[in-house]
Amino acid sequence: MVATTTCDVHTRGQGDVRDVTREVTTGLAESRLANGVVTVFVVGSTAGVATLEFEPGVVVDLDRAYGTFAPRDGDYEHHRRWGDDNGSSHVRAAMQGPSLTVPFVNGSLALGTWQQIVVIEFDTRPRTRQVIIQIVGE
Amino acid sequence: MVATTTCDVHTRGQGDVRDVTREVTTGLAESRLANGVVTVFVVGSTAGVATLEFEPGVVVDLDRAYGTFAPRDGDYEHHRRWGDDNGSSHVRAAMQGPSLTVPFVNGSLALGTWQQIVVIEFDTRPRTRQVIIQIVGE
Amino acid sequence: MVATTTCDVHTRGQGDVRDVTREVTTGLAESRLANGVVTVFVVGSTAGVATLEFEPGVVVDLDRAYGTFAPRDGDYEHHRRWGDDNGSSHVRAAMQGPSLTVPFVNGSLALGTWQQIVVIEFDTRPRTRQVIIQIVGE
Repeated sequence: MVATTTCDVHTRGQGDVRDVTREVTTGLAESRLANGVVTVFVVGSTAGVATLEFEPGVVVDLDRAYGTFAPRDGDYEHHRRWGDDNGSSHVRAAMQGPSLTVPFVNGSLALGTWQQIVVIEFDTRPRTRQVIIQIVGE
Repeated sequence: MVATTTCDVHTRGQGDVRDVTREVTTGLAESRLANGVVTVFVVGSTAGVATLEFEPGVVVDLDRAYGTFAPRDGDYEHHRRWGDDNGSSHVRAAMQGPSLTVPFVNGSLALGTWQQIVVIEFDTRPRTRQVIIQIVGE
Repeated sequence: MVATTTCDVHTRGQGDVRDVTREVTTGLAESRLANGVVTVFVVGSTAGVATLEFEPGVVVDLDRAYGTFAPRDGDYEHHRRWGDDNGSSHVRAAMQGPSLTVPFVNGSLALGTWQQIVVIEFDTRPRTRQVIIQIVGE
């Protein structure tokens, strides 16, 4: 059996992180499925999905770490070809990945106590992100 | 229901990126499944799977970013132990991941307009990569 | 059909990598499922799951690469706010991801010969990690 939920997430631009755990938990409860996997997918090539301890310190630390890997003001071929300013967004998003799959057992997600499911905005401007919560199970 | 498609992808070595979106879309159409998830998996420990805007600028930018994380000509224990030259390939592939799961709804993949599914070659020489497209749904 | 196996993995702290391929293979055999996907998920926000060639050189190289991205002794907001010392663990785990999905076909995992499924410890102290092996197939 498959159940689909979607939600829109409004972000403020690069480094913004939004907790969608409640949306996933609600979708799972409404599906009435007991065992299976939930795939959380963000549409677009400049955002990502992760789990993390959702507190403001980790959010800042993650953005800084990504800054060493793909600096926002770095020199990108994507800028030269397209006149965009979000080369760092594309690189970060490709590495982070748009997708996360979490098992559920007896109707409960297998998350730790301090482990939330989040959408990470990598784009350089505010965006509205469509998130697909796809539940496959029995 | 489960449907399996495989394809071979020929690459030119580290930094080469190949778009497999059409292979995934075709496999999904042939499965006649309407709702579920597609897992795209590349066999081997020196390649990865991602989504990105597949244009030549982003491809170059991603390779450069990986070069700061795991430089191709860096000093690797893997080289010392095995006489290989692809330590950077192993490190990059472990981080990127060999697997991506994408939902489909009413027979359509939940991808954005500028979001392709790609195989990233990290190895230092051309390779033929086996890609497994596993579709689970109803 | 869904089959669930769990296992505990004991780790020695940051950079420790544990091979769980045998646990996954055993769980798959016991499920008697032929085709589908296995999701391997580590509970908690300071560990990750990956595939890699499990040999001691790659394990050292991966830890060093993560050290450039999120140095263990770096300056983290997470430390300031919570008095913890594992900011690097949170950042690395968020990037690596807690989850991996691997197809299986005719009862066999689609892994390469030198491609193992591993749990990566990012926390700064030894931990016991709960790993959920969720098998969805037919």
